[in-house]
Amino acid sequence: MEDQSLKPIRCKAAVCRTPGEPLTIEEIVVDPPKAYEIRIKIICTSLCHTDVTVWRAKDNPSLPRILGHEAYGVVESVGEKVEGYAAGDTVVPNFMGECDSCESCLSEGTNQCTSVPFTMGPGMRRDGTTRFRDSQGAPIHDLVAVSSFSQYTVVDVNQVVKVHPSLPPKLACLLGCCGGTGVGAAWRLAKVQPGSSVAVFGLGSVGLAVVQGAKMCGASKIIGKEFGVTDFVNPSQLGDRPVSEVINEMTGGGADYSFECIGVSSVMTEAVRSTKPVDLTTRIHAISGRGKTIILGLEMDGQPLCLPSFEFLFGKCVMGSLFGGMKPKTDLPILAEKCMNKELELEKLVTHEVDLEEINTSFDLLLQGKSLRCIIWMDKLHFR
Amino acid sequence: MEDQSLKPIRCKAAVCRTPGEPLTIEEIVVDPPKAYEIRIKIICTSLCHTDVTVWRAKDNPSLPRILGHEAYGVVESVGEKVEGYAAGDTVVPNFMGECDSCESCLSEGTNQCTSVPFTMGPGMRRDGTTRFRDSQGAPIHDLVAVSSFSQYTVVDVNQVVKVHPSLPPKLACLLGCCGGTGVGAAWRLAKVQPGSSVAVFGLGSVGLAVVQGAKMCGASKIIGKEFGVTDFVNPSQLGDRPVSEVINEMTGGGADYSFECIGVSSVMTEAVRSTKPVDLTTRIHAISGRGKTIILGLEMDGQPLCLPSFEFLFGKCVMGSLFGGMKPKTDLPILAEKCMNKELELEKLVTHEVDLEEINTSFDLLLQGKSLRCIIWMDKLHFR
Repeated sequence: MEDQSLKPIRCKAAVCRTPGEPLTIEEIVVDPPKAYEIRIKIICTSLCHTDVTVWRAKDNPSLPRILGHEAYGVVESVGEKVEGYAAGDTVVPNFMGECDSCESCLSEGTNQCTSVPFTMGPGMRRDGTTRFRDSQGAPIHDLVAVSSFSQYTVVDVNQVVKVHPSLPPKLACLLGCCGGTGVGAAWRLAKVQPGSSVAVFGLGSVGLAVVQGAKMCGASKIIGKEFGVTDFVNPSQLGDRPVSEVINEMTGGGADYSFECIGVSSVMTEAVRSTKPVDLTTRIHAISGRGKTIILGLEMDGQPLCLPSFEFLFGKCVMGSLFGGMKPKTDLPILAEKCMNKELELEKLVTHEVDLEEINTSFDLLLQGKSLRCIIWMDKLHFR
Repeated sequence: MEDQSLKPIRCKAAVCRTPGEPLTIEEIVVDPPKAYEIRIKIICTSLCHTDVTVWRAKDNPSLPRILGHEAYGVVESVGEKVEGYAAGDTVVPNFMGECDSCESCLSEGTNQCTSVPFTMGPGMRRDGTTRFRDSQGAPIHDLVAVSSFSQYTVVDVNQVVKVHPSLPPKLACLLGCCGGTGVGAAWRLAKVQPGSSVAVFGLGSVGLAVVQGAKMCGASKIIGKEFGVTDFVNPSQLGDRPVSEVINEMTGGGADYSFECIGVSSVMTEAVRSTKPVDLTTRIHAISGRGKTIILGLEMDGQPLCLPSFEFLFGKCVMGSLFGGMKPKTDLPILAEKCMNKELELEKLVTHEVDLEEINTSFDLLLQGKSLRCIIWMDKLHFR
């Protein structure tokens, strides 16, 4: 059986061959895991904006490529030197790594593992090579060393998080990127305090996960548009009035925390302006605390974030991170448990479900703004 | 004796009557302290850039005005309801207040007292009125309810910090603004960790105090230009090369902390670019930790701080605060003790000393870039 598992596997994958063109469903070959690697049978995956950004990018030197990085699966086989994982383990692969022994992983100040560091470039994290080949034997590149738009993939042991098999696959999948990023941003990065006020700009999957995270942390006022928020702002009904002005009013001088989950420079500025203290020279009501703004969106048009530096002098703070500042192996299982006992409700992020063959539909839905998360099932016979 | 102390006092003060014109040395009247107020005999004060900014401001509706907010003095008398202070106490008045009982003062998250909040506008903090009149009886406005360019002033009890009488007056004075702000920014706001790297942009009084604060916190690499720094960067010798690039090299991928102490938008951007991680897509060396940038300068030309939002996604943080995030009554006495036992060396910030009559010289020296801090002695007979 061990021999069997360490042979190449033929399976189906959705391959990006031309920027912006539909992915092609192909039979590919997935090599066995090398040392410190794990081969995973993907059960379900979902489409994230980052996949779309890479898919669209012109002059991409890393094509053909297998995208996808938000997923859930089962360990099929493990390479040499892998300890603590065995075939059959239910797992969430993650784009971040956690080695649990480097200076960064031992520190509370960062979630950037430095022994096997994160990179956006293709290639497995330890040797830079790929485990994918097409039917002609030509190499296919990976994405963030996860590449979950394939029925099988190989991931570094540092990037594989074990979760309890009773966790619903869809929820496990979401925790791997949008859910973890949003909830983590409220919980680990902003450290939202009980009774505080939170403004969320952009209620896509990440923004809605921020709302859930803020709720989990005990925020008493969550301003956004829907699904768990306590107060509503509809920008289209404000006329020329800046959203920040409305939020400042609603919170008696600014929210304690604001989150930008879209990736638009002007919204980032409004997010910072929405936190307390608003204007110390003219204020009437007393305002306490330092407003924190968390930037989660990657600016779409490359515009800089511009702020009056004055904002900072009165104690504001702007910060960000990848994966909401979470250490995947430490923090993701905690959130998995909170999903199980309904402290976190991420189910509503799933608006659509398709099979691997229909994966291009998930792109259409996301681009048309019709979906939040579309779950892509990798094997329609067994896992639905 | 108590009756005596609660009468108005005639004394000398330097009054700003016309924006940008030399201050006039006048005989003024200082009213007795009201409830919760303390009248202080100022021993020495010094000139800060904020005084210059207010002095220069055109269309200032608050003239005539007595500037000055970095000072040391002795309690002359106390108003009703003042507890814990008596005539003869050596004190540092502060532009920030600390009531020790409001939600903010009890919280670690802010140094902005909300029961008697900070404001840049003139007027005593509780009733908005002034305690100064000129020889004709016309009111003279205060500055941040401190107004130390007067031989006597009245300050809210929340803004008065007792210090040990053996603390040298010049050091006590510096702790009231630049010293407290700079050291506090490293110690209380950035929370500089032992062994970390620090880049300081702008080595005026505040920047040099940051250097001292970083040293006190155990930073192992402090990059700047002089006085306590461990490494040097001379921007004039770099040609077109950005300072951030040089600092990134010197620190193996970015400093742990950077401080902007000038107030120039482009320098703020460079300060953020100087922290780790620098570029995760191309880096070779492993980089740990999240870079923090502390904004201490108020942008001189009203230019916004502009940053690629990308910087934040990899864990950077930009923050700021007034008075370095320090709670004056809690933290200033701790720093006073560190000055006494030479853990902090602020003496070198004093480059000039003048008497009250020569106060306009201190403006000339600062504007010409010839001084760091110029101490202004309020009574040449007794305290020099």
